[in-house]
Amino acid sequence: MSPTARLTKKGQATKERIVSTAADLIFEHGVAGTSIEDVRKAASVSGSQMAHYFQDKRHLVQEVVDYQADLVLGVQRSPRLETFSDLRRWAAINVEQQRERNCEGGCRFGSLAGELVEADRDTRRQLARGFDRWESVLRDGLQLMYDRGDLRPEADPDKLAMTLLAALQGGTLLTQTMRSTDPLEAVLDSVIEYVESFAADPASVARA
Amino acid sequence: MSPTARLTKKGQATKERIVSTAADLIFEHGVAGTSIEDVRKAASVSGSQMAHYFQDKRHLVQEVVDYQADLVLGVQRSPRLETFSDLRRWAAINVEQQRERNCEGGCRFGSLAGELVEADRDTRRQLARGFDRWESVLRDGLQLMYDRGDLRPEADPDKLAMTLLAALQGGTLLTQTMRSTDPLEAVLDSVIEYVESFAADPASVARA
Repeated sequence: MSPTARLTKKGQATKERIVSTAADLIFEHGVAGTSIEDVRKAASVSGSQMAHYFQDKRHLVQEVVDYQADLVLGVQRSPRLETFSDLRRWAAINVEQQRERNCEGGCRFGSLAGELVEADRDTRRQLARGFDRWESVLRDGLQLMYDRGDLRPEADPDKLAMTLLAALQGGTLLTQTMRSTDPLEAVLDSVIEYVESFAADPASVARA
Repeated sequence: MSPTARLTKKGQATKERIVSTAADLIFEHGVAGTSIEDVRKAASVSGSQMAHYFQDKRHLVQEVVDYQADLVLGVQRSPRLETFSDLRRWAAINVEQQRERNCEGGCRFGSLAGELVEADRDTRRQLARGFDRWESVLRDGLQLMYDRGDLRPEADPDKLAMTLLAALQGGTLLTQTMRSTDPLEAVLDSVIEYVESFAADPASVARA
């Protein structure tokens, strides 16, 4: 039985509150810039409560990685990505999110990956699983478009999904660094035009 | 007169050795995982020498940012990026570089950006300048192709350059996280096919 399974409902709620507090602090200050003590204070819990739920900072950070993956995937899944116009909407949502944050902080999950990828093997694998899940969400939509015949037989849903995810990650890092949504808009527009170039019926592609 | 301008030739060489040592350590362990003392030991200099050249860690890190930008831009400039086959070669070199490193460490400059972008305003601006310079190198080549008529009038060299840079950054982060060159190969192939879709003469595009 995992430690989580043994928690009472109240205990589970407290643990979740600590993780979401830690996620917000880390999103703002980075992993290196966030101490266990910062999280404890911000979540208003005692030192013994912190120790009860998390062996050490590494374990807390691992929970944050899963938390951000879930959050990002929740956002990415809605709206569904099953049509060319869904892809355009997906791009617009990601750009709008950066604009609302004045391009600060980057991608909730990608920033964690950038900081932690070389930390240790377990964390890297956990980050890889997060990106895998994310790519699957994109691929499922593209596969559906493929199976439905919206995409020509030459299209490769795997490759297209990886292209969209990489474009989003790279575009977000450039947008964060330059504090302008231009890079993200440029690369997402390019890769979506690339996906659209595989449209079986070019007329089905709604141009902006 | 800047402090650098006052250094003797020997002093300049010592300073450069410290910066390149710091760059290598930071590439391997990250900024947070590299102390001034680690750099001092690895570069075999005294504490007073370190203090003479660098006020504090932040100043040393700023030198490392410029050093990595120069290094990355040196690599990116050779070969020149002025034909469709140059772009294919550029992609192959970037993939090969990751393969040689077993996909560890990511992009020398992008990893720094990911870790430091929210550190302070000066460092963020310095990182933005590095990406700007990088984008210029790509844009200059694409502009030349455009002016020569290799690219159709609808092509936008600015947008294409930003697309290539973002694809490289995002693809490298995914490749680093997944320890596989697949993501980088996929996204670079996609965006280069996208650039190729603007070829004035489709026959000029050398297919792999």
